[in-house]
Amino acid sequence: MAKQKQKVDANIKKAQCEKGIVLLLTGDGKGKSSSAFGMVMRSLGYGHKVGIIQFIKGEQLSGEEVFIRDFHPEIPFFQMGTGFTWDTQDRSSDIAAAKTTWQQAEKLLKDPDIQLLILDELTYMVAYDYLDEEQILKAISERPAEQSVVITGRGGGKKLRDLADTVSEVKDIKHAFRAGIQARQGVDL
Amino acid sequence: MAKQKQKVDANIKKAQCEKGIVLLLTGDGKGKSSSAFGMVMRSLGYGHKVGIIQFIKGEQLSGEEVFIRDFHPEIPFFQMGTGFTWDTQDRSSDIAAAKTTWQQAEKLLKDPDIQLLILDELTYMVAYDYLDEEQILKAISERPAEQSVVITGRGGGKKLRDLADTVSEVKDIKHAFRAGIQARQGVDL
Repeated sequence: MAKQKQKVDANIKKAQCEKGIVLLLTGDGKGKSSSAFGMVMRSLGYGHKVGIIQFIKGEQLSGEEVFIRDFHPEIPFFQMGTGFTWDTQDRSSDIAAAKTTWQQAEKLLKDPDIQLLILDELTYMVAYDYLDEEQILKAISERPAEQSVVITGRGGGKKLRDLADTVSEVKDIKHAFRAGIQARQGVDL
Repeated sequence: MAKQKQKVDANIKKAQCEKGIVLLLTGDGKGKSSSAFGMVMRSLGYGHKVGIIQFIKGEQLSGEEVFIRDFHPEIPFFQMGTGFTWDTQDRSSDIAAAKTTWQQAEKLLKDPDIQLLILDELTYMVAYDYLDEEQILKAISERPAEQSVVITGRGGGKKLRDLADTVSEVKDIKHAFRAGIQARQGVDL
């Protein structure tokens, strides 16, 4: 354990400059968005200003959404509301909704007060060609130096992975669904 | 996308019984505890009662800890405070602290009002032989049927993986530390 601690300490020491990072949470496993919302909680604990953009939402409000709206209505929180969900099959209205949502993201990507920005499920917008990849990469690259950005979603593409400082892949090893157990509200993983 | 939706819907339909699940968040990547805290946020949004036990903590309070204490002091939240941290090298005091903390976990594992219980970093207690694996497996198996348990930490062992309904592995693909960027408070991944 002493050795493990030494190694961790050395890694921390090696890290030279403090600045915002880009974190990509990808992979086919569940828990990517949960992880992003956990970071929101952490940031709020530190008194940081946080922004949240969700590019895909189901028809029902998720627990995180209810929580943010009820307990932290001061957080800028935008969702691709009436547009894209997993249920729609209307490509042109999806694209329009994606573009409107992206405008909100771009605004926050220029706001130096925002210390943590969550772009939940953004990767799908690129994968389905709803948004322009270069425009996204540019806006993220040009954000304020202190701002961290967390992007979730499967895939993400080589360019986004290259841009990201940290890439974590969540792998689905075993899943309750496959064992015939209904995922519960609150742990719907 | 229609096909993907069909598949997801089918999986949901296949899931027969609604009951609490055991979720193991493992792997060497970062974001396991964040993910657990994201689920806490989700559960709070649904109005569920949540309990949190942390088996390892650093010397400084993390953002999640500050957040829970400041905004949700009603949540049962125990930490292996003065005992085990990554900095201690005193095995016997670590074991004593682990046992005291486990008693708190056991109490919540018997409380039918707790709908989500986080056992953060529990796997290390088993790996270092600080706690008895069989005792842990038994307490988790015998918990109230409606209670979900989320266990985080590397490894976990075959028995815990077998007991878990869902196992997600977080893989560290690329890490800001290695690129020489200091992890920021709030995103310290």
